[in-house]
Amino acid sequence: MQTAAEAQTQFARTDSIEPLVGLVAGDMKAVNELIIERTGSDVTLIPEVAAHLIDSGGKRLRPMLTLACAQMFGYRGDGHVKLAASVEFMHTATLLHDDVVDESELRRGKAAARMVWGNEASVLVGDFLLGQAFRMMVEVASLPALEVLSRAAAVIAEGEVMQLKTAHELETSEARYMAVIEAKTAALFASAAEVGAIVAGKGEAEREALRTYGHELGLAFQLIDDALDYSGVQAELGKRVGDDFRDGKITLPVLIAYWKGDDDEKSFWRTAMREGNQTDRDLSRAIDLMARHGALEETVARANAHGATAQEALMRLPETPHREALLDVVGFCVNRRF
Amino acid sequence: MQTAAEAQTQFARTDSIEPLVGLVAGDMKAVNELIIERTGSDVTLIPEVAAHLIDSGGKRLRPMLTLACAQMFGYRGDGHVKLAASVEFMHTATLLHDDVVDESELRRGKAAARMVWGNEASVLVGDFLLGQAFRMMVEVASLPALEVLSRAAAVIAEGEVMQLKTAHELETSEARYMAVIEAKTAALFASAAEVGAIVAGKGEAEREALRTYGHELGLAFQLIDDALDYSGVQAELGKRVGDDFRDGKITLPVLIAYWKGDDDEKSFWRTAMREGNQTDRDLSRAIDLMARHGALEETVARANAHGATAQEALMRLPETPHREALLDVVGFCVNRRF
Repeated sequence: MQTAAEAQTQFARTDSIEPLVGLVAGDMKAVNELIIERTGSDVTLIPEVAAHLIDSGGKRLRPMLTLACAQMFGYRGDGHVKLAASVEFMHTATLLHDDVVDESELRRGKAAARMVWGNEASVLVGDFLLGQAFRMMVEVASLPALEVLSRAAAVIAEGEVMQLKTAHELETSEARYMAVIEAKTAALFASAAEVGAIVAGKGEAEREALRTYGHELGLAFQLIDDALDYSGVQAELGKRVGDDFRDGKITLPVLIAYWKGDDDEKSFWRTAMREGNQTDRDLSRAIDLMARHGALEETVARANAHGATAQEALMRLPETPHREALLDVVGFCVNRRF
Repeated sequence: MQTAAEAQTQFARTDSIEPLVGLVAGDMKAVNELIIERTGSDVTLIPEVAAHLIDSGGKRLRPMLTLACAQMFGYRGDGHVKLAASVEFMHTATLLHDDVVDESELRRGKAAARMVWGNEASVLVGDFLLGQAFRMMVEVASLPALEVLSRAAAVIAEGEVMQLKTAHELETSEARYMAVIEAKTAALFASAAEVGAIVAGKGEAEREALRTYGHELGLAFQLIDDALDYSGVQAELGKRVGDDFRDGKITLPVLIAYWKGDDDEKSFWRTAMREGNQTDRDLSRAIDLMARHGALEETVARANAHGATAQEALMRLPETPHREALLDVVGFCVNRRF
């Protein structure tokens, strides 16, 4: 049987994020300075909480998308820097609120902000970052970019509410699962890429290509995220294995194993995903059942398919170093171990 | 000694909100329809939670300000309706998040949304409403209005975080208390009024007059709110007396009683506002101490002063039925019993 690692090797490209990192390095420096400036406040709790999350080693993939998508059309200005920082603030606000909603104890391998400063601070600092994100976007004065990003803000929240309802529901359809990850992850990836084209003054063809690229990349990214939660490589990287399992969160690997399971297995999944008291033995059994039914491989295969669609969309744009770097990022996301 | 009721009668006007309600009735119908439309979602939890709060009998003072301030300059269009609905969504989102932060059990006399649907839904539906607010503002396509409202969103959240830090701190200065209520209440009142002038195409003189009016009205409104929490009239109106006291929340009436108290009283306040287990007897003593030191009267007197400043700002604008109605609203806010 094909292993998850083997299924992840479809992409012949470098599968590296480094070309992208190199191309946007200068502008990312400006984004990082802007992030520090705009989290500043006399209310010192705000920069404290924000720095805790922002300095915690996220890859900043979303703002890098915005920068690269503006640069690829030769954009000269600083609007893309502000939009990229806005995108990162929207993402950070979502993480702060998510951790409250999920009662998470860890985030990127360290204590979640809510464990240090309380749920109150996480909710309110998230609101502050959302407000600052909107202020920065408004400064760019592009109504089309504002439309795209304000719509994303509503869609992300809608997706999170949808997830509340489907979170523990094994009768969730694949369509419904996809609707949740489209809203909570793909929408911001799509917007991050599209606003790069917008600020560079490009029309609907370029916008659509980058929107599709971002959307499909976001789906691939989230599918891999959901698979990694049941994968051994996570253990070393702060993100514990089985967080989704312990939260009883229904993701595609669970759904696949459930669909393919016999009556005994279905009964196991129903008990495991309903109750809050899963043991390590339950997690081992869940991972065994996924292996038996190829649930992770199938999830990775879906991610591969979305990655391929992302790359096809990009191929509609002129060949530039940025296009090549963004093509590579797809492989990076699909083959990543963290 | 002058009672709080007597101190509240400085205004010779009608002190009624009815003239304002009458002038904006037609547009408010459009606002209410838009609110229902934009809380609609296939994710049925969203309209359920939103309706719980939106239908719960708030006065909708803030959106009425936006409508009246646009109408007073003869504005013909529907931008003010969208901005008014945005303002109400921002306010509703704040209430949803506030109740989570304060662990409130009641809101406007009925169970807080978080008691019915959980903190998760309150956080996420609040985020959805914020996103929808931004989408509506963007549709109006006025960058100056977007600047004003996006800034307010950040300032409100900053004020709420500030309040987290000062909430239980009896050494809070009056300046710091005022900074909190400026951010958490006056900023949205000021913005609600100012964007009316903006959408009507008016310049800085009108914007400044209405911004000042809204700001000072907001301060008066919040000071009265803080006084009413210790006032008998609240009891009949769903809002329980002493909610702030039980939360140990430091407001101006508490600060005044603390400043004027002797060592014994100061010690009482320190214990009462620090501990979470106040008794009804403690609340009675707090109310007695406030009466002894005229704390509510002094708070109402401050509200009167801010109300007078609000009215002065309005007098810089041409005489219209709208101006008269907005002048009356000041008396309504200062003399309200609910």
